[in-house]
Amino acid sequence: MSVLTVDEKSTSIQILANRYQEVRDQSMKLCEPLQQEDYVVQPVVDVSPPKWHLAHTTWFFETFVLIPHKKDYQVFNEQFGFLFNSYYESVGKKALRVERGFMTRPTVMEVKDYRVYVDKQMIGFLESLQEMDHELDRLLELGLQHEQQHQELLVYDVKRILGGNPIFPAYQDVSPRNVSENNENTLPVKWLSVGEGVYDIGDQSKGKKFTFDNEHGAHKVYLHAYEVQSRLVTNGEYLEFIKDDGYKQFKYWLSEGWDWAKRQESKNPMYWFLIDGAWMNYQLVGGLQPIDMNAPVTHISYYEADAFARWKGLRLPTEFEWETAAKKYSADVPQKANFVENEKYSPSKASEDNYQFFGDAWEWTSSSYMPYPYFTIEEGAIGEYNGKFMVNQMVLRGGSCATPNNHIRHTYRNFFPAHLKWFFNGIRLARHI
Amino acid sequence: MSVLTVDEKSTSIQILANRYQEVRDQSMKLCEPLQQEDYVVQPVVDVSPPKWHLAHTTWFFETFVLIPHKKDYQVFNEQFGFLFNSYYESVGKKALRVERGFMTRPTVMEVKDYRVYVDKQMIGFLESLQEMDHELDRLLELGLQHEQQHQELLVYDVKRILGGNPIFPAYQDVSPRNVSENNENTLPVKWLSVGEGVYDIGDQSKGKKFTFDNEHGAHKVYLHAYEVQSRLVTNGEYLEFIKDDGYKQFKYWLSEGWDWAKRQESKNPMYWFLIDGAWMNYQLVGGLQPIDMNAPVTHISYYEADAFARWKGLRLPTEFEWETAAKKYSADVPQKANFVENEKYSPSKASEDNYQFFGDAWEWTSSSYMPYPYFTIEEGAIGEYNGKFMVNQMVLRGGSCATPNNHIRHTYRNFFPAHLKWFFNGIRLARHI
Amino acid sequence: MSVLTVDEKSTSIQILANRYQEVRDQSMKLCEPLQQEDYVVQPVVDVSPPKWHLAHTTWFFETFVLIPHKKDYQVFNEQFGFLFNSYYESVGKKALRVERGFMTRPTVMEVKDYRVYVDKQMIGFLESLQEMDHELDRLLELGLQHEQQHQELLVYDVKRILGGNPIFPAYQDVSPRNVSENNENTLPVKWLSVGEGVYDIGDQSKGKKFTFDNEHGAHKVYLHAYEVQSRLVTNGEYLEFIKDDGYKQFKYWLSEGWDWAKRQESKNPMYWFLIDGAWMNYQLVGGLQPIDMNAPVTHISYYEADAFARWKGLRLPTEFEWETAAKKYSADVPQKANFVENEKYSPSKASEDNYQFFGDAWEWTSSSYMPYPYFTIEEGAIGEYNGKFMVNQMVLRGGSCATPNNHIRHTYRNFFPAHLKWFFNGIRLARHI
Amino acid sequence: MSVLTVDEKSTSIQILANRYQEVRDQSMKLCEPLQQEDYVVQPVVDVSPPKWHLAHTTWFFETFVLIPHKKDYQVFNEQFGFLFNSYYESVGKKALRVERGFMTRPTVMEVKDYRVYVDKQMIGFLESLQEMDHELDRLLELGLQHEQQHQELLVYDVKRILGGNPIFPAYQDVSPRNVSENNENTLPVKWLSVGEGVYDIGDQSKGKKFTFDNEHGAHKVYLHAYEVQSRLVTNGEYLEFIKDDGYKQFKYWLSEGWDWAKRQESKNPMYWFLIDGAWMNYQLVGGLQPIDMNAPVTHISYYEADAFARWKGLRLPTEFEWETAAKKYSADVPQKANFVENEKYSPSKASEDNYQFFGDAWEWTSSSYMPYPYFTIEEGAIGEYNGKFMVNQMVLRGGSCATPNNHIRHTYRNFFPAHLKWFFNGIRLARHI
Repeated sequence: MSVLTVDEKSTSIQILANRYQEVRDQSMKLCEPLQQEDYVVQPVVDVSPPKWHLAHTTWFFETFVLIPHKKDYQVFNEQFGFLFNSYYESVGKKALRVERGFMTRPTVMEVKDYRVYVDKQMIGFLESLQEMDHELDRLLELGLQHEQQHQELLVYDVKRILGGNPIFPAYQDVSPRNVSENNENTLPVKWLSVGEGVYDIGDQSKGKKFTFDNEHGAHKVYLHAYEVQSRLVTNGEYLEFIKDDGYKQFKYWLSEGWDWAKRQESKNPMYWFLIDGAWMNYQLVGGLQPIDMNAPVTHISYYEADAFARWKGLRLPTEFEWETAAKKYSADVPQKANFVENEKYSPSKASEDNYQFFGDAWEWTSSSYMPYPYFTIEEGAIGEYNGKFMVNQMVLRGGSCATPNNHIRHTYRNFFPAHLKWFFNGIRLARHI
Repeated sequence: MSVLTVDEKSTSIQILANRYQEVRDQSMKLCEPLQQEDYVVQPVVDVSPPKWHLAHTTWFFETFVLIPHKKDYQVFNEQFGFLFNSYYESVGKKALRVERGFMTRPTVMEVKDYRVYVDKQMIGFLESLQEMDHELDRLLELGLQHEQQHQELLVYDVKRILGGNPIFPAYQDVSPRNVSENNENTLPVKWLSVGEGVYDIGDQSKGKKFTFDNEHGAHKVYLHAYEVQSRLVTNGEYLEFIKDDGYKQFKYWLSEGWDWAKRQESKNPMYWFLIDGAWMNYQLVGGLQPIDMNAPVTHISYYEADAFARWKGLRLPTEFEWETAAKKYSADVPQKANFVENEKYSPSKASEDNYQFFGDAWEWTSSSYMPYPYFTIEEGAIGEYNGKFMVNQMVLRGGSCATPNNHIRHTYRNFFPAHLKWFFNGIRLARHI
Repeated sequence: MSVLTVDEKSTSIQILANRYQEVRDQSMKLCEPLQQEDYVVQPVVDVSPPKWHLAHTTWFFETFVLIPHKKDYQVFNEQFGFLFNSYYESVGKKALRVERGFMTRPTVMEVKDYRVYVDKQMIGFLESLQEMDHELDRLLELGLQHEQQHQELLVYDVKRILGGNPIFPAYQDVSPRNVSENNENTLPVKWLSVGEGVYDIGDQSKGKKFTFDNEHGAHKVYLHAYEVQSRLVTNGEYLEFIKDDGYKQFKYWLSEGWDWAKRQESKNPMYWFLIDGAWMNYQLVGGLQPIDMNAPVTHISYYEADAFARWKGLRLPTEFEWETAAKKYSADVPQKANFVENEKYSPSKASEDNYQFFGDAWEWTSSSYMPYPYFTIEEGAIGEYNGKFMVNQMVLRGGSCATPNNHIRHTYRNFFPAHLKWFFNGIRLARHI
Repeated sequence: MSVLTVDEKSTSIQILANRYQEVRDQSMKLCEPLQQEDYVVQPVVDVSPPKWHLAHTTWFFETFVLIPHKKDYQVFNEQFGFLFNSYYESVGKKALRVERGFMTRPTVMEVKDYRVYVDKQMIGFLESLQEMDHELDRLLELGLQHEQQHQELLVYDVKRILGGNPIFPAYQDVSPRNVSENNENTLPVKWLSVGEGVYDIGDQSKGKKFTFDNEHGAHKVYLHAYEVQSRLVTNGEYLEFIKDDGYKQFKYWLSEGWDWAKRQESKNPMYWFLIDGAWMNYQLVGGLQPIDMNAPVTHISYYEADAFARWKGLRLPTEFEWETAAKKYSADVPQKANFVENEKYSPSKASEDNYQFFGDAWEWTSSSYMPYPYFTIEEGAIGEYNGKFMVNQMVLRGGSCATPNNHIRHTYRNFFPAHLKWFFNGIRLARHI
């Protein structure tokens, strides 16, 4: 437990209160372009209604901060605990995930009132604190990081809601940008090499900086010499795979991926449409438009990423290879990279000075999502955070165009099942030397 | 083709224009208590979003009246034809029924604008007419009857959307009425008898009055002597069936119904909840409240209606028995019966002076929905109206508390698959003499 | 209860015992061409393994005759009651229908031993009787009729088991017959007319002859004047429907049928294959062979029968129209018709002297399967016989090439759900005059 | 390519021919206790009919050895290539896996004839060889190893076919052994420790010994210090988990495992039944019998293994930890361990002199099944061997009571999806030091 002078204390708490407000405002900002109707629906089970994201992140602060820590706190609405809980089975009976999109009440307005109420209570609570307890600090930070995760999901889900509509409404209406209609001018690929050796993996801060539980357990791994490409695979390169009948040749595919592709009739990245002989894609900014062949391919499943790599005679890196290469070739997270603050909501073309390790698109790795050595599960409901999902998921690294820029790190582990395509992901190729 | 004087013409057309406005206004009136969010969702495939009902009925007038008949008519939005078409496959590719609840755009406001636009065009069109062509008259009437059908569905669907929400929001907030908590004061049943003989069935008007295509084909049926009860089965009577383990005894059930009940874990009417030992139900007016034991049971499947009748040692009437008894014992449709104008949205307790043939609850008959002799399908898209559904559906008769009072007749045939419960239906028992 | 002299008694009982043996032997005869392996499997839920048919019909006699009526009867194997029960839920927990095809034990040999044991016991029991009780007589007859129903199912199921195998093994190997490869020589159709009037329907024997419970309730129906065709629709005629894009035009189809056909990718009768431009079909006798264009079309769903009729501008008859026409134009069941004794196991080409009302193929009617007036359910397990299925099934009339010739009558009502195709069915067209 | 003297050659080829005959005979031996019917069915998609195993392994030799290498080889039956292919999509259109259990033809007898024919051809072919080509040697060995894999599956599948039958027929009828009904005398657990360091993993033989492709890519891994238990978890220990409501406490479970357990109503290992208060299990030898509390628990999913470990406050080892510990503590595969030759077909109680690394039960590891560094896929159909399955599967190590004793090694990697229970698996607990 830290001992601070009064001034240090007030400064530290003020910083936290400011950060709280900033993160919370960003959620509302992301929703500004939405119509009331867009907040409500859940077109597939993996998507949550925007309204639900707004309420669930608020519920987190009410349940884990205000109720246990604020004296005489008055719950906003007793029923919200039931309605806006997610996977935290310890806390109470959760509403079925599949039913989220049918809950027209509470209304969007009531959910916004809920946010205003909880925010006011939280700020009041923070200002009333004499000193910041480490436990509480960690909890608040977890709540904010949790909200940032949901901000990212919000972008995916809004894209799915609008992009799944046959009339393709844009999230933001701007004139479509100039796009490269072929890959003649694609930035050439370089190979970034890493030598054989034992490397440190995972959060090395010993609790000094916030990291998620799944990054804990700093440990060593042995890597054989390898190299990774200096940029992400482009739409143009992926189209070559399609044109070479990549989707029709069993030899490139995992058996499960082959069956999945047949069952889904999956023949291209999500949001791609072949219209009158021209390849178009749906973008949040500008709606339906020609595909930029120089931009990174995104919205593909792990199966497709793996098949593409096999077609190339290459492979995906492991998450350990990725982390080690990123530390070597992109020692700092470049704040100018294509994160959500960029408001582009789509991966950008690679440039000479950026290897695209951060932002643009989460990079599929060939590592399944498993606990690190020494991983432990925290006590109580918070313990349900990440460890519950450590089976049948693949790790992705590096953040995307929907990630807040202060939310990502070299050790950050994202994870999704192999078949999901609706989030911003991409491919970086690797090979052993 | 009728020949009218100018005055007669204008009167006749003015009446039609008034009726048009009245029916169209009623759709909007039914939606007044809704929140924006309630318009959008589709919790099960049988339900349509209220927004969709408002747009689809408007699309009908635009597609079948304005486009073919109004000179220089400007379509409101080309995409609406695709989005708000229903089963009319001839008219164009329809949006998948299961996807209706994910279409957040066009917004509710745009749909309301669509209605205003089409209504203005329709009134202008009607007023411009010199004389009313029979074909057009029939088409307009079909459009209005079609809209009334959707008004009825709207009430069911709103009940499903609100009543399926775990916080049970009321559609209208009034103090719950006094309810009878037992069936001591239930009105005694009388038996209404009909003698053996040949009876006329179906629309006898020879096209003079509007009826649906499925009522056409006036014909004769032979009925053996029978009688039907003088009122609908009550909640109290149905509860006796439950308490007598009616749901647990195979001998009362159709094999398919038994499997269905097990699969659905169906153990009571829809919207019934046993809470702390007391039977409650959800009502549009007043929300969750104790069940009125004297009111008619409603929201049951055909399987349950049939099982109940078997448990009683009785049976359901055929649709021919129903029609013949209704003509004899309720020669006129009583305008004071419990129709949608009553704004009760729930079946009422029986009274001495009303045999409940009309209003309250659609009565399950033991007739499957098949074409009458001489039934023919009209040419073109309109021909898809009713005949497409003549398999694996059961006929219901008499209208409900959600039916407009000028929409029902003795010969009206409603139909639903045997497993559906979300609409207002009920049981009238019958037996041979 | 009848009172017979000793001689009459012994004669009557001897006749019954002979008939018992004859029916039981026929089940074994039908299985003779099978390999051990063919007895075991259940490729779709509607099919039962031949072994199961053999055991289930035996279980019927053991359970309903020997156990309650034979003194000191020793059950063959206590577990068989559980394994070989079907829908008779009153009698005991039944093995799940979907699991029938995984029960490799008891073996075929044990099931045959079971039959031998029960037959010996039954013959012994019959011979020990002093007089034949009416109740028992009825029960025995029910058991035999039940076995004949299963013999018919056995033929369908064997065809499905062998015909679903990619190597198309024949049930009987004979040189394929000469077939007509076009419909040039198809027998011309005549129209058989019936006048308007009130007709008797159902079993008129007042219990003197055996009929199933679903035929009981002799009653009157009013028929408007109509006519039916003098033969069944041929393969050649059906092929014209296919060639005219009948499967691709929504206007001919029931909405449910259209969805079904799309979902099933159903584009032709079952067992039809277009191989190198030639239409082939699988037949029990001879295996895969060219389709005989003059033979009746068979293995179609109700949806297809209905769509075909609509394409022709005609309709299917009701079951009452069928029964009345059959009584008028085929007063006796022609013993030379194409029944199972014919060992052709496939519908035959029509001939001048046979209107094909009986044998060849069960004729789809437009009547759904509902109880007749005065229908009652018998007490006890036997009561589960036919009434349990009176919803969402269509009636078929007249028997097929898999029906025993002494099993069919004018009043016999068969029934199947609208989507099933694996049994021998066909189309007779009708129209009002 | 090796150069051998004539004698060496004949010896080497003779050894191979003997080994060929031995492995092939073992498949037949395993089937001896089966009835004809048992060979045919496929109760769940993961099971293959025994007949299929016999034919598929034979097809492998015919397709990959005889057809390409034996001059003038006459194929036994052209259709078998289609029917008995499995995942080898390159070789030809494969019969759908789900349909395997409906193929009653070819009969068991024909499949046995197929085996006899191919064996005779194979022996003739081997004897005709002048020298053994390395490529061919490798192919033959692959065929034999492949057959041994199917022998193991055969045991699982036979258990599933017989053990899923409600009458529980035994595979071999012997008097049930004495079982320990409680865990009082369970062998105490010791902890076997391994120090931190870099270890060699995978096949180090550089192609000198046969190993599967998934073992190739000898490489190094860094392990932090850890220890594993000296024996497998027993039935008695697992029962404690059940009794402590382990299946009812979300905190022990992976989220996916929790949902799976609810959906499957999984509450205990497969083949366990609580009958009249006593825990019984089905065993191939002896059928239904009391559970031996000292024997290793088996037939559990990965989810259950993981939940059990979490309940214990421990974890499963990674596959690298397993391999390293096994090399240290069980340097040789003990030929006396409980392999298939033991004919017990069930895991045995641990003893002082055997750490159970080999035989008894495949040990679930916490490693998902991924390619090793330098893993490459072989050209052609053989390349489809193991790499196609490298996603969403967990690695198991050490063999089971159904594994041939010469088929297992320290580097052998087995793999199954997390939810499967029908094979012989078990739990060895681990922890970091």
